[in-house]
Amino acid sequence: MSEEVVCVDFWANGFGMRVRIALREKGVQFELKEEDLRTKERSALVLEMSPVLRQIPILIHHGKPVLGSINIVEYIDEVWKEGPALLPADPLDRAHARLWAHYIDKMLFSTQTKFLKSKGEAKEKSKAELIENLKQLEQVLGDGNYFGGDEFNFLDIMLIPFSSMFSGYEEHGSFQIGVECPKLMAWVKRCRQRESVARTLPDDGEMYQLHKAWYGIE
Amino acid sequence: MSEEVVCVDFWANGFGMRVRIALREKGVQFELKEEDLRTKERSALVLEMSPVLRQIPILIHHGKPVLGSINIVEYIDEVWKEGPALLPADPLDRAHARLWAHYIDKMLFSTQTKFLKSKGEAKEKSKAELIENLKQLEQVLGDGNYFGGDEFNFLDIMLIPFSSMFSGYEEHGSFQIGVECPKLMAWVKRCRQRESVARTLPDDGEMYQLHKAWYGIE
Repeated sequence: MSEEVVCVDFWANGFGMRVRIALREKGVQFELKEEDLRTKERSALVLEMSPVLRQIPILIHHGKPVLGSINIVEYIDEVWKEGPALLPADPLDRAHARLWAHYIDKMLFSTQTKFLKSKGEAKEKSKAELIENLKQLEQVLGDGNYFGGDEFNFLDIMLIPFSSMFSGYEEHGSFQIGVECPKLMAWVKRCRQRESVARTLPDDGEMYQLHKAWYGIE
Repeated sequence: MSEEVVCVDFWANGFGMRVRIALREKGVQFELKEEDLRTKERSALVLEMSPVLRQIPILIHHGKPVLGSINIVEYIDEVWKEGPALLPADPLDRAHARLWAHYIDKMLFSTQTKFLKSKGEAKEKSKAELIENLKQLEQVLGDGNYFGGDEFNFLDIMLIPFSSMFSGYEEHGSFQIGVECPKLMAWVKRCRQRESVARTLPDDGEMYQLHKAWYGIE
């Protein structure tokens, strides 16, 4: 049976990278439809599948849309049970993973945006916040190999796409994440050795170039 | 076996009402510890159980904290399986319910805050946005008795606490939700007949009084 799995995404979309990594971890074949986030126009497919939110990524499974990157990864985990489990089995660990996934979206992503958009004092302030957010996440990682413990897992998938911007953060803010958060950087290297991650993450330099153009960074 | 379930919450906290409704739907006995959100001080219990986010509600189960209201309700559903299922069984329906739960937190709650805080033109603009958000949710409800279809369900639990502020919205904005969203208001009445909801929701008038004091509304 053809699963008819389509992922509508933009190559530099960190939220969408989560979906692509999850599908690759599960070994699900999918068709990637590129949507250019650099324009405000949305394709007929996005307008049809996400008429209200008009957002990507969209996972289309048997013609039906699933929206929201955290949601989609949970959906993938529930539907393709034959692959490796992405969410931990224990309800307390699941709650912990979900909570920090939303922390990444609410805190890290908005701090990143402020940091890249601002100048002078505001930039320094948001740089300090960004380092604080990363240290926070490093604390959650603790001494484990992965956020889920010994296995690459849900929360790893949630955070690893952001590492595509880490060298951009360093260049933009003249600091070294490896000095501030050595365990987190070791985790990034570990994750990037996985095929699902290596195939999905774009070139760090291209990511920063795109964001420079996006936010008018000189 | 004592389940040792503690819910740390504030009586007027809509996010926490979700947790109390979910526990009551499942028939779980719990101890409620009141935390006054009107002050910036947090109790030793909150600082111990949520040192980073310092937020409530907190569900403490066998001494361990679960944070984030959507998260907590999912946790409750996963742990007390013997009660009625809160999330739908089908992965697509689950993804739909989770997506709209986050829409409520991201859109409706922030629009509510803007609406209550603003004056003049900004107030009119956020009032229009608020009505738009409610109409959106009414569209998601469709012709069903509940958001989950025939049964009171996860998404109903997510939204019904906000109805405590509906009469406040009406007074603050001089409009009638029942005129704008008749199906949504019929749903509110239906939900409020449930014991879990009736026992949890505070008095509408007291809710608006509290928000008036909170936002300095004259």
